[in-house]
Amino acid sequence: MRKTRPTQDEMDAAAAKLLARFTRIRQFSEQLCEPLVIEDYGLQTVIEASPPKWHLAHVSWFYETFLLRPFLPGYEVFHPRFEYLFNSYYEQTGAGFWPRQERGLLSRPTVAEVYDYRHHVDAAMARLLCECASSDWAQVEMRLGIGFSHEQQHQELLVTDIKRHFAHNPLRPAYRADLPMSPIGDPEPLSWLSFDGGVTEIGLNAAGDDAFGFDNECPRHRVFLEPFALADRPVTNGEFLEFIRDGGYGDSALWLSDGWAELRQRGWCAPLYWEQHDGAWQTMTLAGMRPLNPAEPVCHLSYYEADAFATWAGKRLPTETEWEHAASGVAIAGNFVDDGWLHPRPAAGQGLRQLFGDVWEWTGSAYLPYPGYRPPAGALGEYNGKFMCNQMVLRGGSCATSRDHIRTTYRNFFYPYERWQFTGFRLAETTS
Amino acid sequence: MRKTRPTQDEMDAAAAKLLARFTRIRQFSEQLCEPLVIEDYGLQTVIEASPPKWHLAHVSWFYETFLLRPFLPGYEVFHPRFEYLFNSYYEQTGAGFWPRQERGLLSRPTVAEVYDYRHHVDAAMARLLCECASSDWAQVEMRLGIGFSHEQQHQELLVTDIKRHFAHNPLRPAYRADLPMSPIGDPEPLSWLSFDGGVTEIGLNAAGDDAFGFDNECPRHRVFLEPFALADRPVTNGEFLEFIRDGGYGDSALWLSDGWAELRQRGWCAPLYWEQHDGAWQTMTLAGMRPLNPAEPVCHLSYYEADAFATWAGKRLPTETEWEHAASGVAIAGNFVDDGWLHPRPAAGQGLRQLFGDVWEWTGSAYLPYPGYRPPAGALGEYNGKFMCNQMVLRGGSCATSRDHIRTTYRNFFYPYERWQFTGFRLAETTS
Amino acid sequence: MRKTRPTQDEMDAAAAKLLARFTRIRQFSEQLCEPLVIEDYGLQTVIEASPPKWHLAHVSWFYETFLLRPFLPGYEVFHPRFEYLFNSYYEQTGAGFWPRQERGLLSRPTVAEVYDYRHHVDAAMARLLCECASSDWAQVEMRLGIGFSHEQQHQELLVTDIKRHFAHNPLRPAYRADLPMSPIGDPEPLSWLSFDGGVTEIGLNAAGDDAFGFDNECPRHRVFLEPFALADRPVTNGEFLEFIRDGGYGDSALWLSDGWAELRQRGWCAPLYWEQHDGAWQTMTLAGMRPLNPAEPVCHLSYYEADAFATWAGKRLPTETEWEHAASGVAIAGNFVDDGWLHPRPAAGQGLRQLFGDVWEWTGSAYLPYPGYRPPAGALGEYNGKFMCNQMVLRGGSCATSRDHIRTTYRNFFYPYERWQFTGFRLAETTS
Amino acid sequence: MRKTRPTQDEMDAAAAKLLARFTRIRQFSEQLCEPLVIEDYGLQTVIEASPPKWHLAHVSWFYETFLLRPFLPGYEVFHPRFEYLFNSYYEQTGAGFWPRQERGLLSRPTVAEVYDYRHHVDAAMARLLCECASSDWAQVEMRLGIGFSHEQQHQELLVTDIKRHFAHNPLRPAYRADLPMSPIGDPEPLSWLSFDGGVTEIGLNAAGDDAFGFDNECPRHRVFLEPFALADRPVTNGEFLEFIRDGGYGDSALWLSDGWAELRQRGWCAPLYWEQHDGAWQTMTLAGMRPLNPAEPVCHLSYYEADAFATWAGKRLPTETEWEHAASGVAIAGNFVDDGWLHPRPAAGQGLRQLFGDVWEWTGSAYLPYPGYRPPAGALGEYNGKFMCNQMVLRGGSCATSRDHIRTTYRNFFYPYERWQFTGFRLAETTS
Repeated sequence: MRKTRPTQDEMDAAAAKLLARFTRIRQFSEQLCEPLVIEDYGLQTVIEASPPKWHLAHVSWFYETFLLRPFLPGYEVFHPRFEYLFNSYYEQTGAGFWPRQERGLLSRPTVAEVYDYRHHVDAAMARLLCECASSDWAQVEMRLGIGFSHEQQHQELLVTDIKRHFAHNPLRPAYRADLPMSPIGDPEPLSWLSFDGGVTEIGLNAAGDDAFGFDNECPRHRVFLEPFALADRPVTNGEFLEFIRDGGYGDSALWLSDGWAELRQRGWCAPLYWEQHDGAWQTMTLAGMRPLNPAEPVCHLSYYEADAFATWAGKRLPTETEWEHAASGVAIAGNFVDDGWLHPRPAAGQGLRQLFGDVWEWTGSAYLPYPGYRPPAGALGEYNGKFMCNQMVLRGGSCATSRDHIRTTYRNFFYPYERWQFTGFRLAETTS
Repeated sequence: MRKTRPTQDEMDAAAAKLLARFTRIRQFSEQLCEPLVIEDYGLQTVIEASPPKWHLAHVSWFYETFLLRPFLPGYEVFHPRFEYLFNSYYEQTGAGFWPRQERGLLSRPTVAEVYDYRHHVDAAMARLLCECASSDWAQVEMRLGIGFSHEQQHQELLVTDIKRHFAHNPLRPAYRADLPMSPIGDPEPLSWLSFDGGVTEIGLNAAGDDAFGFDNECPRHRVFLEPFALADRPVTNGEFLEFIRDGGYGDSALWLSDGWAELRQRGWCAPLYWEQHDGAWQTMTLAGMRPLNPAEPVCHLSYYEADAFATWAGKRLPTETEWEHAASGVAIAGNFVDDGWLHPRPAAGQGLRQLFGDVWEWTGSAYLPYPGYRPPAGALGEYNGKFMCNQMVLRGGSCATSRDHIRTTYRNFFYPYERWQFTGFRLAETTS
Repeated sequence: MRKTRPTQDEMDAAAAKLLARFTRIRQFSEQLCEPLVIEDYGLQTVIEASPPKWHLAHVSWFYETFLLRPFLPGYEVFHPRFEYLFNSYYEQTGAGFWPRQERGLLSRPTVAEVYDYRHHVDAAMARLLCECASSDWAQVEMRLGIGFSHEQQHQELLVTDIKRHFAHNPLRPAYRADLPMSPIGDPEPLSWLSFDGGVTEIGLNAAGDDAFGFDNECPRHRVFLEPFALADRPVTNGEFLEFIRDGGYGDSALWLSDGWAELRQRGWCAPLYWEQHDGAWQTMTLAGMRPLNPAEPVCHLSYYEADAFATWAGKRLPTETEWEHAASGVAIAGNFVDDGWLHPRPAAGQGLRQLFGDVWEWTGSAYLPYPGYRPPAGALGEYNGKFMCNQMVLRGGSCATSRDHIRTTYRNFFYPYERWQFTGFRLAETTS
Repeated sequence: MRKTRPTQDEMDAAAAKLLARFTRIRQFSEQLCEPLVIEDYGLQTVIEASPPKWHLAHVSWFYETFLLRPFLPGYEVFHPRFEYLFNSYYEQTGAGFWPRQERGLLSRPTVAEVYDYRHHVDAAMARLLCECASSDWAQVEMRLGIGFSHEQQHQELLVTDIKRHFAHNPLRPAYRADLPMSPIGDPEPLSWLSFDGGVTEIGLNAAGDDAFGFDNECPRHRVFLEPFALADRPVTNGEFLEFIRDGGYGDSALWLSDGWAELRQRGWCAPLYWEQHDGAWQTMTLAGMRPLNPAEPVCHLSYYEADAFATWAGKRLPTETEWEHAASGVAIAGNFVDDGWLHPRPAAGQGLRQLFGDVWEWTGSAYLPYPGYRPPAGALGEYNGKFMCNQMVLRGGSCATSRDHIRTTYRNFFYPYERWQFTGFRLAETTS
């Protein structure tokens, strides 16, 4: 965050850029919903996957709550109950929130009304960027950065949640039947890359960097690493099939205790979305059911399944420290939502492949604060900090992530039992 | 059911009449949905209240399953999975059924596709009525009677379920803001009518009557009645308010044991849809929130609440035998869905008032088979018979029932804890 | 209840008799517990089956609450918290009650302390019978009748609950390994007995009879019966095995809807306590595991299973009216707890066999008030009346019932899914 | 583990020492149960707290399974079903296990039989130590170390579980009314001790150390620490009362998201066992209810409560690395089960106080494998490794821990919502 007040010219130039980015991001959310019919917008088939309509409204609520109401004089909210209906989990806004598990039970406001809400917010945001007081500018700029990232996170959720909802329907409808498809093949051979140990640094240098980052990536700090090796690509469907054929889902010795309990309670016998028809494996995609491609990274796995596979293979998952250390200096390139596949692709090329995009990689690290971490004051402090318990860190983004959303230091987190994100993993081992 | 085969002329005349009735009933279902927006069609806010879209499809599935597939040669089903998606609970069709609690989780087929399905069935039904083999006629005619009644039952459910879904939304939207409203007033005075005891008859004479009736109303049989008296109208909101003000919801001595457990678990302190705002009672209606009218029959009560009120009042609920005996010879008149109020109205007139329409009346009778009852063979035998346990009988129809659907012998049944139907009650006492 | 005050001599004579009966009943409870070790006294393996210790204390609490505290001047309670710990479900005593599902979680008071409590109450009851004011006598005598019956009901529960607890233990311990055992054989042939219909009377004539009866058996009243026939003995294990072999537990068409749901949720595939080992059926008894005897009445069935069997057999269950009409004039004889088998025995003799004892017979009647029924005022009114919903009537007593506890008019009631009592059934049919 | 085979003399000497220790530990388990009555042995009031009888049997099963069956030729098990009944959670033994939540539902085997079982195992263990083949000695010695530690862990659980069971009883019985009691007073002032950062080492050097340690403490490895400060004693009841009075349990901003959900679902408003009577706080102890002593360390808290307090105080919990670094070189001294208080005591003395004993200290570290950790092969590998997910590390032992059980490197772990252990915490802060 800049410390001195900007001049009007500086502000105008920055505002123009920010408005362009705002507009681009806002449009992308709506573009993702174009293949939907009205009926799809209200679906909540499982508690963790929200209705598309809710996502569209919630990201607008976010701008309204954290930018328009505090910084745009005279702003009038679109509807007085929306701060209750579209707040996700912020306790400190004081408005409360509609229960998460009932987001799919609201037919009103209609889809058209939610789009009206979006456009109301869009217009007000354009006004705010034009008229912002220079004394507010630093706050507004910083919060815009969060708002953009926030909407991008919900764009990823739109994709993953739509997939979840459609997979629940016995008709297995396609979101976009026209999506491209990687040729079916065998997995690329896997190699190992070695890394020396020693003291290294991870995390985001909030003060020095110009780029946006979340509070949970800060502060940058030193850590000690033992020597380790990392697989040069994620585990594939083909490799995971070997685990299944070897009885992996039936051998308790491979599983964490909580994972085994989860497996038995839910009857897991393959990753989410896998189905066996006449002896052949298929998987649900955003283009509908398709044959399983052994060459693609395995996806839609819980942490427990990733950990069990690693145990079976005599390896382990990397820590987030190892992952970030290895990723330092690697360019952010890969298969992102921008590329339009909406599905992981087989590895290609050389070196440390697919660190970014394709699948989020479960790490063996619990999601905890970095040394010296403090959440910001106020409701925005609830964004990341209050979730630092019971979840595991994932790294690198997926085929549903925006390319300009991800960073080397980016920390995603999910409960170890969750499977509906594009989650995969890469093997590691200690070499000392 | 007629025993001899009809002539072609007889069949043509009957078919024309039946087709007219079929068309009228089919159109009424769609007419009830006209005030809905697309988003409303998919709602299932509680397990017992299905989405409007499901009702529209299910009643069509019923004709398809019990008339078109067995009796229309060459009939092609609209979609091969619909027999699974839109079967409600018939185990013997062999197709299974989509879980009841997940009816709201299907965005596809779309609303438009469901209407297409309806019209596909409509066209085929018209063909069936034209082309029916005389050897099939008796079966077809009998099953049409069930199909009509079945669709009318689901029309009532459309109304009650929409009310339930809209009441769940914190915006409390109106289904039809233009509905009329009875003037607010005090309840009419209540009088008692006495009936002698003795042997009487209840139930439907299937063989002799021309009119349609359900299997569970048969056979007509003798019963013995002790002398009793019946209130000349149902209990009103005003009277029920006295019960509340007297601490009725807090006095365990008034309640059945299971009712008290239900009350405490669910936190009941008033009938469903009642809300107190600034000390004044309002109630959700199909026109949105409205002030509570003391003169109207109390509605949306469980059996437990009806029973507790009766205990508090030193009375009891009538048995279904008493109710039917008293109703014999009373004309079927009252406030029905045809009248367009979609809400109970205050009592008016003299004598035994509001036996029909306004509110279903809980009786003190468990829903059990009449002596000599046998369900029909096959899946249609599941229509009524398999529910003869744990439910209580209600009589007389409601403001959401079609006038030509109800009969003096008609037995409705719900679990004693259910409240989302237009359910009220009338007091009785033993006078011997 | 006598209306005039008795003389002292009358009271002394009556008191002596009552004290003798009291002592006999109190001793029998303790005698039933003799085979137990201390550890057994605290078991509650399922919510509906209470710990033996609790039964021993609760029946004492009953005398304390309804006789000693109101009628014995200067009575001091054994422990001030016992009115909370050992109240079962009486809301109107004002003391509340320890949650039913946690009765097994109290190691204190110890077994020895509970026996001390019993003897404290015994001594006080003897005093009460000596010193009772003549103005209280009628009340005391009436309540003693309830107290005796109450303790006898809990004696039956002691037997059934111990069986339930021991069957839960994988070691399947025997309560009394020395119990006799009927010779294994084939069922006796079954005959049918016909009864004319017409107006008849059932229920207890409270005013006229000298014998004790519960409020729920009153008043005696007229009913109309269609002609019917009754099997001359209950259904046997051998007959029930045919139902199982014919796929009865897998054919939804035989089952009530709620029964089928229960079966699937709980995985029922045989009556409670049946186990198949190496292809042979065994059953848990109070003497431990024993081979299933085809000649014995089938036992430990839910209402749903009884009803499904009857449907499979093309028959039905009798109503409680039919049962009582048929039982009028039949002597109270059979296999009771007094006989010491603690297990149903094969039918023997001629005529209407095993109406009393052996197994409680599920009827097709819901447990509802008789016309004109009113529960007594006060907490004792909770004894029977508040359970008149959702339960079914059973008749005739079982091998765990005391012979002098049962009556022709006696109405027992359980939820249709309950199986841990000695419950069986007899077939009926309508013959008109 | 020694690599070369010992001589017979070495073995004899070692065996004598081990047998003495075995005997001492075995006796202490029984000594802890002396205050119990038979009825107490079977209690399981919550799923996580097992019955004393089960603990006594399970620790014997452990020796039987991991020492007697593999290493004592001709050993005959006490009872063939005990390997099923008293296995806790070892999947790889092949025998399965009785469900954890039903441990309190077994009255048989009796307490006397369980003591017989213990003595059967004791005698066999003595034989094993005499007759052990030298080729087995290393394994036997290593497994004995685990067996001793295992029984000591269950001794701690005996204490904590008995406290939990007795607190559930509304009579709040005392386990030992004669326990001593610290004088009530104000908390000692709190000071902060500073530690430099840098590379340090934690963990157990399995190869080099003679002392026993668990696999999860290995291997010793380097870590990097930022400079930090540590409170010189745990947080006290008095300090925690300030948090309560300041509305800590009502301010969501202080809580982790999962913690806040837990608090609301369970209605937490104070630590476990705290009760307010007439405005004064009391707490359940093993001597029964006692006034809350402000000077004692606060105890029976979840991780969530510890974390919320730290947030409220503007501090944080230490990591396990910080804790172990600070504890290096500190002597193992404190208030242990050996001291007979069975309750935390006020801080006394100078420097880093109460690191050991009194209360287990929640750290901010998730329970995860150390770099290079590998669980042992076979069922013993399930001891620690399979729990490395979703739990938090605690350090230092409690007043219910044996003094010779604890180590500086010792890692205990519980779910963040668990409160029935003697759990407290100490504050930390980052000082860089």
